[in-house]
Formats: sequence, C-alpha cells, structure tokens
Amino acid sequence: MISVVGGDRASEAALALAEEVGRELADRGCALVCGGRGGVMEAACRGARSRGGHTIGILPTKDRSGMNPYVEFPIVTGLGFARNAVVVLSADALIAVEGSYGTLSEIALALAYRKPIVSLGSWSFTRDGHEPPPVIQAVDARDAVEKAMAAARSTAGPIAEEVPKHGD
Amino acid sequence: MISVVGGDRASEAALALAEEVGRELADRGCALVCGGRGGVMEAACRGARSRGGHTIGILPTKDRSGMNPYVEFPIVTGLGFARNAVVVLSADALIAVEGSYGTLSEIALALAYRKPIVSLGSWSFTRDGHEPPPVIQAVDARDAVEKAMAAARSTAGPIAEEVPKHGD
Amino acid sequence: MISVVGGDRASEAALALAEEVGRELADRGCALVCGGRGGVMEAACRGARSRGGHTIGILPTKDRSGMNPYVEFPIVTGLGFARNAVVVLSADALIAVEGSYGTLSEIALALAYRKPIVSLGSWSFTRDGHEPPPVIQAVDARDAVEKAMAAARSTAGPIAEEVPKHGD
Amino acid sequence: MISVVGGDRASEAALALAEEVGRELADRGCALVCGGRGGVMEAACRGARSRGGHTIGILPTKDRSGMNPYVEFPIVTGLGFARNAVVVLSADALIAVEGSYGTLSEIALALAYRKPIVSLGSWSFTRDGHEPPPVIQAVDARDAVEKAMAAARSTAGPIAEEVPKHGD
Repeated sequence: MISVVGGDRASEAALALAEEVGRELADRGCALVCGGRGGVMEAACRGARSRGGHTIGILPTKDRSGMNPYVEFPIVTGLGFARNAVVVLSADALIAVEGSYGTLSEIALALAYRKPIVSLGSWSFTRDGHEPPPVIQAVDARDAVEKAMAAARSTAGPIAEEVPKHGD
Repeated sequence: MISVVGGDRASEAALALAEEVGRELADRGCALVCGGRGGVMEAACRGARSRGGHTIGILPTKDRSGMNPYVEFPIVTGLGFARNAVVVLSADALIAVEGSYGTLSEIALALAYRKPIVSLGSWSFTRDGHEPPPVIQAVDARDAVEKAMAAARSTAGPIAEEVPKHGD
Repeated sequence: MISVVGGDRASEAALALAEEVGRELADRGCALVCGGRGGVMEAACRGARSRGGHTIGILPTKDRSGMNPYVEFPIVTGLGFARNAVVVLSADALIAVEGSYGTLSEIALALAYRKPIVSLGSWSFTRDGHEPPPVIQAVDARDAVEKAMAAARSTAGPIAEEVPKHGD
Repeated sequence: MISVVGGDRASEAALALAEEVGRELADRGCALVCGGRGGVMEAACRGARSRGGHTIGILPTKDRSGMNPYVEFPIVTGLGFARNAVVVLSADALIAVEGSYGTLSEIALALAYRKPIVSLGSWSFTRDGHEPPPVIQAVDARDAVEKAMAAARSTAGPIAEEVPKHGD
C-alpha cells in the first residue's frame, strides 16, 4: 500500500502528475491510500480507478462530505488533521506531490515513523545542526512509483513498536 | 496557553534556550503545554516550574513512562505522534526550539490550523510555487515569548470549526 | 460498508456466527470493516474472503503485528482503543457478536454517533432514567446482516457534522 | 488525577452529585479531568473550582466552543468522541455520574484499559457468558471519591504498554 499525499488545491501540473502516479500504482497492483479529499488526492484516485486499482480515502471529517468520488473504501475518522498520522502509518511508502502544510506534516510524520517518502516537487526543509532529511527525489510519476515501491520492499519487516526515542 | 515544541534529544544551546522560554512564560502567567517527554520539553517544563508556572504534558504513550518529572498535569493519549495535533490545537501560539521531524510535523500542523508559530533555530522550509510560510523568527527566549504572546492575543477569537479547505 | 465488532477471544459459537456474518455480507456485496485482529474479527474476515468479499482492518497498533491474515486492506492507526471511533464512523451499520469491553465501547460509540447497531448475543445495558438503547436484536447471522443492511439504507444521507449536543 | 464522566444533559440530582464530587476531589488535592463540556462536566468543574481545585477539560472540538467556564486548562483535541480514550487514559480512576452513550463508552474503555471505575447511578450492563464487569458502586459523592482514590492508590504503578490481548 502506497500513500499519495498532496493538496486539496493544486496546480494543473500537480494534478496531471498525481493522476499518472495513480495509474502507475494501479498498473503495478498497488493499493492507493490518501486523505480522500480533492485536488491531488482526487486526481490520484481517478488515475488508479481508471486502471482498476483499489483506492482508500482516510477522511478527516465525521462523515463522507468532501470525499472525492474515486474513493472506493472511505475510512471516516473524525480526527481532523490527526488523521494524517493514519495516512502515514498505513503506507509502506509515501509519494508527496507538491502540497501545502498538511502535506508537510505528513512528510514529517513519515520521517518520524521511518517510512520511505518520495517527493515530486514537494517541500524542501533544513535545520542547522540536523542531518539532511532522507527524502527521495523523483523526476516524474513513473520514477516516483518505482522508487517508492523499491523503498517499500527494502524496508519491509518488523517495525519498532516503540515511539522512536529521538523523534520529537 | 503556549506550546513549546522541540526534540527529545537536543543540543546544550537548545536546552538552555528552552529552559529560559519556560521561565519567561511562567513569569508572564502563561501555562506551558508540551509533549511531556525529555530534551527540550523537559528543559522548558523545568524552567516554568522553577518560577511556579503550570506545565501540561500531552504524552504519546498509554501511560506516564517517558514523562519528564516537571510535568504537573500529564495528559495520557496513547495516540503516538497523532498526539502532535493535540499539542498544536491546545495552544494559543507555539514556540519551536530546534527539533527533529516530530517538531517539523507540529510546525506544519500549526500552520495548517492557523496557529501562530515562533521559531528559535527550528526548521526552514520552502516549496516552489507555494507562498512563504508565516513562521515568526525570534532571536532569543524573551523575544520568542513576547512574539508568541502578542500573536496569541491578536488571533484570539472564534477559530473556524471547518477543516481548512486548502490545507492538505 | 458494515463493521463487525467482537472480541479477540471468543466462544466457538461466536466464531461460527462471525464467520457466517462475513459470508453473508460478501454474498450481498458489502465490504466488511473490523478492528483487524483475532477472534471474532478474524472469523468474520475469513468468512468474507471465502466468498470474495473485501475486508478492511482498522488496527490499534503502529504496525501490522497482531493482524489476522484475512485482512485485505490494513489501516494502521497507532491510536490504541481510540481507533474504535474510526471503526464506528466508517460503518453504515454495525454488527456486534458477543465481545468484551472494547466491543461495548464500540456499541456505545455507535449509539452516540447514531449509527445502526445490531446485536448477536452482545451486551445488554440500562440506566435508570435513560431511554432504552435502540440496539437491534438479531437471531442469527443472516438476520443480523439483513437488519444491518436495511438500517444502513434507511439512515443513509447527510449525517450531522456537529458533535451531538447531548451525547456525552 | 480523577476523571469525572457524565452527560452534557443531566438530571438535577446528577448535577448536584457531580458538583459535590468536584468539591470532594478538590478538598483532597485531586486534579479533576473531564470532557470539558456542560451538564455533569460543568457541575463537577464548578464544584472543584469553588474549593480551589485544578480542572482539566479534554474537548472533542477543534476549538474552545462548548467549553464550560470552570475549565482551568482546556486540552483541545479535535478528535470527536475518540477523545474519550484520552479522558480515560489520563485518569488514575474514573467516577461516572449517570450519563448517556458517550459516558457508557468511557466506562467501557476504562474497563478495557483496566482503570478503576466508580459508578454513581450510571449504566448497568451484562453479557451472557462474560464475567461481571468490575464496576465499583458508590452511594453518594463522598463515597465515590473515597472509593476512586483508594482504587487509584492500589493500582498505581507500571501499566502494561501492550494493548490488552483480550480486550476487543
């Protein structure tokens, strides 16, 4: 399972990229997880469904309002942005397409939970004195999907139950 | 209520800054909210308690293990990093001192929930095509506390119940 | 989507009932949602998968440890029992098969969120001065599935976004 | 820390009981935790504050709307009823005063997480084949507070990090 994260509101370029990511994932038999809403999430789901892939939307709301019509299995959390942690933990790897602050929080949580994260034009970030974040850069949708799947395979196996000691 | 966010593991400089932030908050009658664990969180709580301030620790675990001894009111969530959303929402403003990926997720959620966020040597981040994030830079602990309190006052009032439309 | 709730540890009778509930749901084209673990959850998933139905497991843990092998789509929450609210909100109706205190919490949340809840030998509860809880009793697996689906259809439509005023 | 759980809407008798519970807790130096809203929660907070006790309200909403004015430290979760798990985990023991389905979910979660739970006219529940729930009955506010504090002391110590194996 691969999560695609990105904004409700997105550039035309981001929407086209996300849709192609969805198609590429479906063609390789991956289920697509996302936040279930519009923009990048909708484009990715549309791409996946166009190739017969499964799509799961993990919604922030208490009902299905705001859900895009390409979500096959809606998970209704009522958790607001706290649902971002569920989007991250449910993924074997994540692909970020552009995005706003919610997407940045998902990238950060992916790093905190040691999930592979691939970026397509998403956030860059640094902090003096901190090691460079291990975000994987991709040049196009196919590259992103291939890198995410390769990373997911190489990290498969037991993940520590503990909250990482130094992640806060 | 002001949240102080930062890493379990931190530089000596960050610990000294965090402790002074705690003292400055207590001197001004602010309650301090944090993630309740070690490092920056512990230093900030120690500073606040040394001046008689109240400290609230919002813990990721199912019990009080890993809690620092300067937390006066432990909130035990069992939510893992999803508790970061609670640290953000409970604050009138946040101060980030250095920090790792968990801290970055809190800065991102603060921006997504439109909470004022003040940085003391914490993350810088940009995305091509995205407006610059409205993170407030501070030069020292007193400056951070004064800027956080001023921002908290100016944004007080009803906060939209809606999940922001374009925040994902 | 119908959630099946019940214990990790269950009587032989409960396991047989849950498996038949899973088969009946799959035969009617319903996706099955559950907590993703053993006992009643595993039996229901096994029944559904044996008829080609889709199964979604909403796990309390930070990884897939403890997941039963019949979960097709694992949702990894890391929320502990707080994930029970997600199991409830994601359902159009719920079926409770016996169960322990976790199951009782799901029945209670279903009533709080006004979701139809059907009981197969699960908890009975009363409070002096409170209206009788609208739990639907069923006599066997087929009866439970038919009643759950009928109730789901009759309550479909917009669900209030508000936290119910008097639900606490 | 003792959590008081009960309904937004409550009988006059329940409100009087809850207020006295709040006073008794404050007189013994206990901090009071609750869901932060009206009814029983408000009465308990009012009682505690009238004797100088500390009150913590763990709110379901994304802001402080609906909070009662006697909450000293608001914890804003945005989690809806999933916040009930936080109310339970943060307590050394719980006291339930009457209540509706949200309260029943908190009693159930308290049992699932093995927290002492004292009932003042709250829910009774049974299931054929399940052991009787270890809910402690109290006859009045003072009795409830004394029993809750005694139970909290006797169960203090490390609580298992694991999700209980048979709690679902």
